[in-house]
Amino acid sequence: MPADLATASTVTGLLQEIADVGRDTTRGGYSRPVFSTAETDLRAWFIEQAERRGLDVHTDANGIIWAWWDTVGGTRRDAVATGSHLDSVPGGGGYDGPLGVASALVAVDLLKARGLRPRRPLAIAVFPEEEGSRFGVACLGSRLLTGKLDPDKARRLKDPDGNTFADVAAANGQDPRFIGADYKTLQQLGVFVELHVEQGRGLADLNQPVAIGSSILGHGRWKLSISGQGNHAGTTLMKDRNDPMVAAAKVVVGIRDTARKYQDARATVGRLQPVPGGTNVIASRVDLWIDVRHPEDAVTAALVEAIGLNAQVLAAEEGCAASLGVESLSPTVHFDGGLRDRLRELLPAAPVLATGAGHDAGVLAAHLPTAMVFVRNPTGISHSPDELVEDRDAEAGALALADSLAGLLGQARQIG
Amino acid sequence: MPADLATASTVTGLLQEIADVGRDTTRGGYSRPVFSTAETDLRAWFIEQAERRGLDVHTDANGIIWAWWDTVGGTRRDAVATGSHLDSVPGGGGYDGPLGVASALVAVDLLKARGLRPRRPLAIAVFPEEEGSRFGVACLGSRLLTGKLDPDKARRLKDPDGNTFADVAAANGQDPRFIGADYKTLQQLGVFVELHVEQGRGLADLNQPVAIGSSILGHGRWKLSISGQGNHAGTTLMKDRNDPMVAAAKVVVGIRDTARKYQDARATVGRLQPVPGGTNVIASRVDLWIDVRHPEDAVTAALVEAIGLNAQVLAAEEGCAASLGVESLSPTVHFDGGLRDRLRELLPAAPVLATGAGHDAGVLAAHLPTAMVFVRNPTGISHSPDELVEDRDAEAGALALADSLAGLLGQARQIG
Repeated sequence: MPADLATASTVTGLLQEIADVGRDTTRGGYSRPVFSTAETDLRAWFIEQAERRGLDVHTDANGIIWAWWDTVGGTRRDAVATGSHLDSVPGGGGYDGPLGVASALVAVDLLKARGLRPRRPLAIAVFPEEEGSRFGVACLGSRLLTGKLDPDKARRLKDPDGNTFADVAAANGQDPRFIGADYKTLQQLGVFVELHVEQGRGLADLNQPVAIGSSILGHGRWKLSISGQGNHAGTTLMKDRNDPMVAAAKVVVGIRDTARKYQDARATVGRLQPVPGGTNVIASRVDLWIDVRHPEDAVTAALVEAIGLNAQVLAAEEGCAASLGVESLSPTVHFDGGLRDRLRELLPAAPVLATGAGHDAGVLAAHLPTAMVFVRNPTGISHSPDELVEDRDAEAGALALADSLAGLLGQARQIG
Repeated sequence: MPADLATASTVTGLLQEIADVGRDTTRGGYSRPVFSTAETDLRAWFIEQAERRGLDVHTDANGIIWAWWDTVGGTRRDAVATGSHLDSVPGGGGYDGPLGVASALVAVDLLKARGLRPRRPLAIAVFPEEEGSRFGVACLGSRLLTGKLDPDKARRLKDPDGNTFADVAAANGQDPRFIGADYKTLQQLGVFVELHVEQGRGLADLNQPVAIGSSILGHGRWKLSISGQGNHAGTTLMKDRNDPMVAAAKVVVGIRDTARKYQDARATVGRLQPVPGGTNVIASRVDLWIDVRHPEDAVTAALVEAIGLNAQVLAAEEGCAASLGVESLSPTVHFDGGLRDRLRELLPAAPVLATGAGHDAGVLAAHLPTAMVFVRNPTGISHSPDELVEDRDAEAGALALADSLAGLLGQARQIG
């Protein structure tokens, strides 16, 4: 063990090492989109940290980094996997993703310090493009791994600058021909436990540092395009306009008002682009993206239908036309009951909470037992520079993860 | 006269030569922002065209290109100047700007074909950044020339990528130290006549190809920032939100509704940016730009005040805060009465029309008699790929410009 490992072996210490990577001076917080310099720097940092711990590291064809702590026998079967992601939303916090990666590294240190010699292999995974903030599809890495996303579709995804995923991946040394379902890797995994900062106030309200996840709210992304008549802002009389910006504005308010009528629903417009987008130009089109979530998938569908109908009516009022298309859709995921019960034995003080946020653990849940450990967020704020985890909670999270992994590593697969 | 000049000597022929420069495949139409490859290619094209006609071309310290047809004596005083611009809004049409430049070249050909030997010098001017679509200040070149824009402020202007005007100018061979008021050049000019596509339906309704401009509607640009609380779109309950996008949407509708209460007023939101702008992120701030125009400057001020107050109320309803700042402000410009009357003698069939669009002729009007000639736009649509001028109207416009210039060139300065 190198001399500097002891000082790095806290979650706050590890996060401090990457505190300057990908800072967003415009928005505040961090912007670490997949394949940006910031994200590739973070990946290199993780690989160095993993190798320093003697883990066997490789990056698979989908860009997922795997760091293996093998058993003496060396067979990679029925592994206990943990990990998270290093990419961020634009202007996000420093914990969403990196907290789970740093906690996994610290958990390995804690297990080694306890002298644990695992009977099952352990793997730390770092998934690319979890946020979908560059190519529009959240959990891109785990969706490719599990075959949930068609590789052809993935290759054609474009970032805001119009670059395809295939081209950007190739420019970053990842051969886009080889992305897609990888059952060989999936078959090596027994369980997956993802630690993540809570993105709500559940733990703060319960006054607890750590929770066990029960489910992920179903959610989807829709793109709404409202077309009107582009024109000159100075010469076109107010009465002669078919301004899609006015229509889009009415729709944004309508989406919020509609969502409020459905208990437990959330609907958000966080991204909106007028085309062409000039100050002295009446837009010809406005594109906006709608994020909708509800525990019951049928309610999500009903809410989106209501939003779409309402948008058509409001657009028509302004002489515009609206068209709605789905970009992604994920049903509500209930984590494996057996694995959750095992974690409750291992973390008896931890409450069980649902989350509204999507995670790679939710995508993997269709293929193996998965679970999540949440760490307290005192304000509940996430996807914002104001996201926060107290230092003592970060360390409590890593300890809870170590306890969970230790329990699972000592146990042959019998859950799920 | 080179052999190919005869074929190029129509407005449609000249515009055809540049029809492929700066096409915007995403928005449609053209995107030719100042100092883009497209705009610099157009400038080089103009210089070649002017030199082919034997004009003496130079680019001044503010990036304005001047092409001189000198008198036999060669003194540059009391010149008759014409011209327009080659930059465009994002996704604009092919006539706004280039029509005036091409018509000026054709007018020179027509005057030469008539054997005119001018008693006053003639100059064609091409002004940079008329649209303000890259650095945010419309008529940047003429505002610098006339000392209306502080050179320090201009140097610090930033484009959407954060590059300063000073850096971009320097990278394009224009020394930013030397920009600013240039009274030596201004003193060479006697009158300025700008030909431009009409950006409204005045001529279409009157069934006439060409009009004489009377005035430019006063206008300004304001930036409104609405701050709320950025957060996660999935985990934040609807009731716990301070979403600036919802507030901004209410404000956009409010701006339109307020503007409708003021006769002859126009208010437009064509540019709006949520920050950070992620699909799964409740925005922390929304910036939007408001373009307001009215013939009476006091009404513009009253309308903007009403918009600002309303925005504060609507933002507060959503737990957000609004702040409004002016970016530019131009009072209504009435073109010189003497020059207008002279043009009415020279173009007896042409009606006299006001315009809602800003032009370099409006900026220059504070320093010398200026006038405008408008060419019919059958749909009235401008700042859009749908902008149109019929071929026969384009040639009629060049002929009217030639007739106007011929009349003015034969006349010593006595107007204004």
